[in-house]
Amino acid sequence: MFHHQVDTSVIDDASTPWVPFSPYSNDVLIKYFKADPVRGETITLLKAPAGAQMPKHHHSGTVIVYTIKGSWKYIEHDWVAGPGSIVFETAGSAHTPTFVGDSDEVITLNVVVGDLLYMDDNDNVLAIENWKTAVQRYEAFCQANDIAPRDITAFN
Amino acid sequence: MFHHQVDTSVIDDASTPWVPFSPYSNDVLIKYFKADPVRGETITLLKAPAGAQMPKHHHSGTVIVYTIKGSWKYIEHDWVAGPGSIVFETAGSAHTPTFVGDSDEVITLNVVVGDLLYMDDNDNVLAIENWKTAVQRYEAFCQANDIAPRDITAFN
Amino acid sequence: MFHHQVDTSVIDDASTPWVPFSPYSNDVLIKYFKADPVRGETITLLKAPAGAQMPKHHHSGTVIVYTIKGSWKYIEHDWVAGPGSIVFETAGSAHTPTFVGDSDEVITLNVVVGDLLYMDDNDNVLAIENWKTAVQRYEAFCQANDIAPRDITAFN
Amino acid sequence: MFHHQVDTSVIDDASTPWVPFSPYSNDVLIKYFKADPVRGETITLLKAPAGAQMPKHHHSGTVIVYTIKGSWKYIEHDWVAGPGSIVFETAGSAHTPTFVGDSDEVITLNVVVGDLLYMDDNDNVLAIENWKTAVQRYEAFCQANDIAPRDITAFN
Repeated sequence: MFHHQVDTSVIDDASTPWVPFSPYSNDVLIKYFKADPVRGETITLLKAPAGAQMPKHHHSGTVIVYTIKGSWKYIEHDWVAGPGSIVFETAGSAHTPTFVGDSDEVITLNVVVGDLLYMDDNDNVLAIENWKTAVQRYEAFCQANDIAPRDITAFN
Repeated sequence: MFHHQVDTSVIDDASTPWVPFSPYSNDVLIKYFKADPVRGETITLLKAPAGAQMPKHHHSGTVIVYTIKGSWKYIEHDWVAGPGSIVFETAGSAHTPTFVGDSDEVITLNVVVGDLLYMDDNDNVLAIENWKTAVQRYEAFCQANDIAPRDITAFN
Repeated sequence: MFHHQVDTSVIDDASTPWVPFSPYSNDVLIKYFKADPVRGETITLLKAPAGAQMPKHHHSGTVIVYTIKGSWKYIEHDWVAGPGSIVFETAGSAHTPTFVGDSDEVITLNVVVGDLLYMDDNDNVLAIENWKTAVQRYEAFCQANDIAPRDITAFN
Repeated sequence: MFHHQVDTSVIDDASTPWVPFSPYSNDVLIKYFKADPVRGETITLLKAPAGAQMPKHHHSGTVIVYTIKGSWKYIEHDWVAGPGSIVFETAGSAHTPTFVGDSDEVITLNVVVGDLLYMDDNDNVLAIENWKTAVQRYEAFCQANDIAPRDITAFN
């Protein structure tokens, strides 16, 4: 029975590699803690150097962003998210991140439900990011770097 | 405070119109009970005549389908969903519905979280359906038919 | 990897037994379609004869009730839920069901997230119902009746 | 329409007070970012001094804990959660936190869905914590300290 495989557990920071967010960027790095293959929630850290650019995207579900270091904003909103802040994004929202301030890098914790769609200026969908692409990118990086992958889709 | 607007309530079958699922089909009808603008969950009935076709689509989140009348299947799966069955669809799944059996119509209850993406044979995204398009279609139908719309995005 | 165990599937009405809702009632029956051991969502049918009583209870999460047959209400609310209606219950709500109308029984489909707490008149918690008690009741009934249990906690 | 009140926004660290977790402890402090009155999710920081004790509790839904400072564990599990780690707790789990290591305090970010039930040694429920008690504690603290409360239940 599946429920015998389910338990509360910890995932250490050090045990989880920083993975380049290819093919979008080699400067933006992702640390994959969890990718729920049933409900589609991913839990990740994102690290981006000052000046990195990320394209406009749409979210199918909610996003919680806790900013650990640095400051950033969406060009569609006036507010700036600094260290220690929480951004709550609602289903169906779309926006373009940009990094601001003097910090040399931005690090955020992201709890993302569902798909992230990259879009061009005419709202055509260019690419889909979700739990499946998270697993593919993580496992490809582990294989290329001789790291034994954890099962980031398991709950134990 | 928003929480003062929140209460448990009922939405009657009779008070909610059948809305054509335009522009995809005029034969397929949707009854909109709820469209959550925060988490992106929609609760709907779908009614399709025997022989109706619906294109391949992808879901960003989970889908629960309770079949009230008729039988249907996905061409990607062997199983058939008949009256009284529950289909549970996981995040990131994609499939093509087809209606089977002798019934003159199929009626299902659908609890859908997040986006439904219509795709062509090369997995290019043709259209996005979610809580926003639900509200737009429902409100446009109400306006065109002189019906006072309920707030299907509210929780009271 | 857990995600290799995940697939979209159907659960037939006929393959799933009606289980008495013991120790609360032998007249109220539950059909268990799904019990999510990660997020705590259960998908069930409930069948109660006219005149059955159920005690006051509190929900930690949302509840969606689709009424298939008969009519019922909560004594805390004026509205009545009849066939074809949707009731949406919000997190932290509490209420006392009662069955109304001429039908000999009430049948509902219930999508319940989290715990249901039975409470006495002073709001002391008497019992907790959730995905774990669902599994226990279902498996005990199957064992006592020589039925091979499905894994209602799996997603495939 | 409710959806006109919904928007993506930031909640600053500095704009949100530390609130004593009374009546359980005056040493443990909570910072309330969000309390969802529909789905029951709360987003908070918790700060506890070295040596603080917290009782055994049960969760109706999932919990995500990101540890910002210090180390802690559950006496029911062998693992220790240190800075930068993610703990993922599944629905229906119960455990007793204890703080470990040399740090003078522990600070965690907590995304909690549903109820937290405090229990005695015989699993009797002593108290319920959820989005409602979050709002009550936050608003009572604001009133007592002449702070204009934000609407932590809103999504804008």
